[in-house]
Amino acid sequence: MDALENLIAQQEIRDLSARYAMFLDDHDWDALAELWTEDAVWSLGATVFDGRAAVIGFLEGCLTEDYFAKHINGQSLIDVHEDGVSATGKTDVLWLAANFEVQVMARYVDTYVKLDGRWLFKHREEVGVPYRSGPVSSGPAQMTGPTIR
Amino acid sequence: MDALENLIAQQEIRDLSARYAMFLDDHDWDALAELWTEDAVWSLGATVFDGRAAVIGFLEGCLTEDYFAKHINGQSLIDVHEDGVSATGKTDVLWLAANFEVQVMARYVDTYVKLDGRWLFKHREEVGVPYRSGPVSSGPAQMTGPTIR
Amino acid sequence: MDALENLIAQQEIRDLSARYAMFLDDHDWDALAELWTEDAVWSLGATVFDGRAAVIGFLEGCLTEDYFAKHINGQSLIDVHEDGVSATGKTDVLWLAANFEVQVMARYVDTYVKLDGRWLFKHREEVGVPYRSGPVSSGPAQMTGPTIR
Repeated sequence: MDALENLIAQQEIRDLSARYAMFLDDHDWDALAELWTEDAVWSLGATVFDGRAAVIGFLEGCLTEDYFAKHINGQSLIDVHEDGVSATGKTDVLWLAANFEVQVMARYVDTYVKLDGRWLFKHREEVGVPYRSGPVSSGPAQMTGPTIR
Repeated sequence: MDALENLIAQQEIRDLSARYAMFLDDHDWDALAELWTEDAVWSLGATVFDGRAAVIGFLEGCLTEDYFAKHINGQSLIDVHEDGVSATGKTDVLWLAANFEVQVMARYVDTYVKLDGRWLFKHREEVGVPYRSGPVSSGPAQMTGPTIR
Repeated sequence: MDALENLIAQQEIRDLSARYAMFLDDHDWDALAELWTEDAVWSLGATVFDGRAAVIGFLEGCLTEDYFAKHINGQSLIDVHEDGVSATGKTDVLWLAANFEVQVMARYVDTYVKLDGRWLFKHREEVGVPYRSGPVSSGPAQMTGPTIR
């Protein structure tokens, strides 16, 4: 794998994460299903969905038919392995409900494989920040100022 | 168009969307105007602004002089056509007002053309998620847990 | 620097910003320290931290040990200079507290250098949008509709 091939692979993997977000937000379950290996896993802590059918069944069950919301991916860090057909990656994400409030802020920790020329999810683990209501509690250097709420 | 040219074009088009966000947030209307073809269109449902002057007039009218806010682009999916001078793309976006709350969560659905060596917007369509106040209403697999608000 | 080298440099610099966000959110202060030149500067208006040790001391002091939150980077605009070892860049960012609300919405205005084959921050300036409570106050073209809160 040369430098150009590495860069192409990174972009294709970023696009995989972008497609996940868009297909999920669009309720396009058929297109979403095509992003995973047959034996793919989606997990959040002890909650594990094993196999593409289980993953899609779960994701489809998260939204009623008339409920639309939005995933926003931050930037990704992608590490394409030397073999050129496997990779790992991390992407920070916000999930905003239809009330336009952030309900989940998390990091995807992924493994990918390339099969028949296409990059697919082999494992997507979602690692969420624990929610704490109440005012911000920060460290000794707590900053205040006109640009901080 | 070879693989490297495709990747360069994709990045230039991502940069076009980044410039749109930054120039708009900065009220830099002259720089914003340079991102569009003469006959460019900006639309949101039945609201259509036809031609660069109309587009910029509208965008400029969205903000009073002393009002600053922020667009945050998620990741983009860019499809550069085989001719190397036309492309389509999708980018999810949040618009946050000066009260730091999300007012719009949308997808840009764009067409681009390359003129005199620069990628420009030919059509930017904004497709927003309908706002629904009230608590989250999701599907049968509704998840709860420490990382979900 | 040819077109491929430019693209590689841009991606490495995007990854630098992604690492800043992730290492900070993870409280990984050792990894965060490796992203800066010895004489690096972090600034926000008149608040200036001069030198890597001062920068990391400040960033570490922003969070108590048990407080986790999230940076979400929007897209970056990166300009790699002709020498191939210096660059400037801009990245919009949200910082969300553990209460899942946006506390800071800002732009990073950065200068980078490449030392011993790795891109590093030389100066990261944070330019925040002033916070204004209360309802949105926008311009004459104020839009309302089902997709706007």
